[in-house]
Amino acid sequence: MVTKNQLKEILKLKQKKQRIAQGLFVAEGEKTVGEFLNASWPFKGLFTTGNYSHSKAIQITQTEMNEITHFKNSSPILGIFEIPKPKIIKETPITIVLDSVADPGNLGNIIRLCDWYGINQLICSYNTVDCFNSKTVQASMGSLARVTCNYKKDISKYLESLRKPVYGADSSGVSIYSIKLPKFASYVFGSESHGISQKVSNLIESKLSIPNFRKEKGAESLNVASAVAIFLSEIIRDA
Amino acid sequence: MVTKNQLKEILKLKQKKQRIAQGLFVAEGEKTVGEFLNASWPFKGLFTTGNYSHSKAIQITQTEMNEITHFKNSSPILGIFEIPKPKIIKETPITIVLDSVADPGNLGNIIRLCDWYGINQLICSYNTVDCFNSKTVQASMGSLARVTCNYKKDISKYLESLRKPVYGADSSGVSIYSIKLPKFASYVFGSESHGISQKVSNLIESKLSIPNFRKEKGAESLNVASAVAIFLSEIIRDA
Repeated sequence: MVTKNQLKEILKLKQKKQRIAQGLFVAEGEKTVGEFLNASWPFKGLFTTGNYSHSKAIQITQTEMNEITHFKNSSPILGIFEIPKPKIIKETPITIVLDSVADPGNLGNIIRLCDWYGINQLICSYNTVDCFNSKTVQASMGSLARVTCNYKKDISKYLESLRKPVYGADSSGVSIYSIKLPKFASYVFGSESHGISQKVSNLIESKLSIPNFRKEKGAESLNVASAVAIFLSEIIRDA
Repeated sequence: MVTKNQLKEILKLKQKKQRIAQGLFVAEGEKTVGEFLNASWPFKGLFTTGNYSHSKAIQITQTEMNEITHFKNSSPILGIFEIPKPKIIKETPITIVLDSVADPGNLGNIIRLCDWYGINQLICSYNTVDCFNSKTVQASMGSLARVTCNYKKDISKYLESLRKPVYGADSSGVSIYSIKLPKFASYVFGSESHGISQKVSNLIESKLSIPNFRKEKGAESLNVASAVAIFLSEIIRDA
């Protein structure tokens, strides 16, 4: 069963402030929870309505699961995991940077894409959505167990320190299909609504765009996760 | 103001059954609603809390908007549009087919991608989520005004009738980077959880994969919208 106190604690973790204070986050679903367990992430609690075979899983009722879930529809398993201490990760030749990305689902998707293309670290501006947001955890489908989100107070300062060319995704830029995208570079993606911030823009050596193939007037932009997918594919395709 | 009857009618449109019965769907947000209005889509109602300059927009209070919205957070504008009669669209050289895609956000994203890459029609199996689902409309960001979703009862029969090669996205397939993806072909994408159905699989000439660049064990799959993004980029990049 779930105690009243546990219920309160789990629901609190919907808020970033509380996740930071407690050092905990919630993951739901067999696939996602399984990936964290496989990666031996320390956890504080594991609740299941099904026959999840884990010695520490606590059996609860469907009604209880419906109360503790962070989603409209619950999953058969919910885990409370510890937020790891910030890791120092060796700089990689390709750096992917998110500047003010607000949508948690998009961030989760980008984490999954980085995982797929073998990138272990994602640099995020402070105002990018928290990677331990339940929706981000869900959308990352466990890839968060392998990709570290490194939040930087000043991403322009960080980019300068890397001493490598900086490219920015921008619809006014040069087509990504017209040049060979370098594998020793930083690539910056801006917010869904406001693009790349001015301070970071100043560091950009070249703006790059995914050309719009519609002849007549069409969509004004792509979803930021779609843009990252297409960029990563172009950068890494012949790796 | 919003009458009690209007409120009831708008909330009903959350259900596919009701959308079909009424021939109506809901679009929210300035960008999305604006795209449908620009495309001269017939509408039944337009409600705004702001200063939306449209002669037919009805001014309502924030409290009223919070009641009629289909989302957790409302937008300053909500429109009730008519579902168009099925259009007969000229077959295009590249056919994109969705087999049992369930997530409304993914479908909206795929519609936006098709728009970007100049594809006017998307073929969907009957059990693919409804394109007039409010979340799909929202994620498509108005691209639904240009891309028609054509639902087929039997997509395998339809694919056969096209008499062109059929390719299927499948993690066990040949790398998309190892061959030139033809521009006269059908490309099938399966459901997020079950892949491509058996009947359609039988028609596939070649399975194609986006190779996983992670050396050690990593993500098992990509989000279907990310997969479509990468495929479209590869197929159309040198158009």
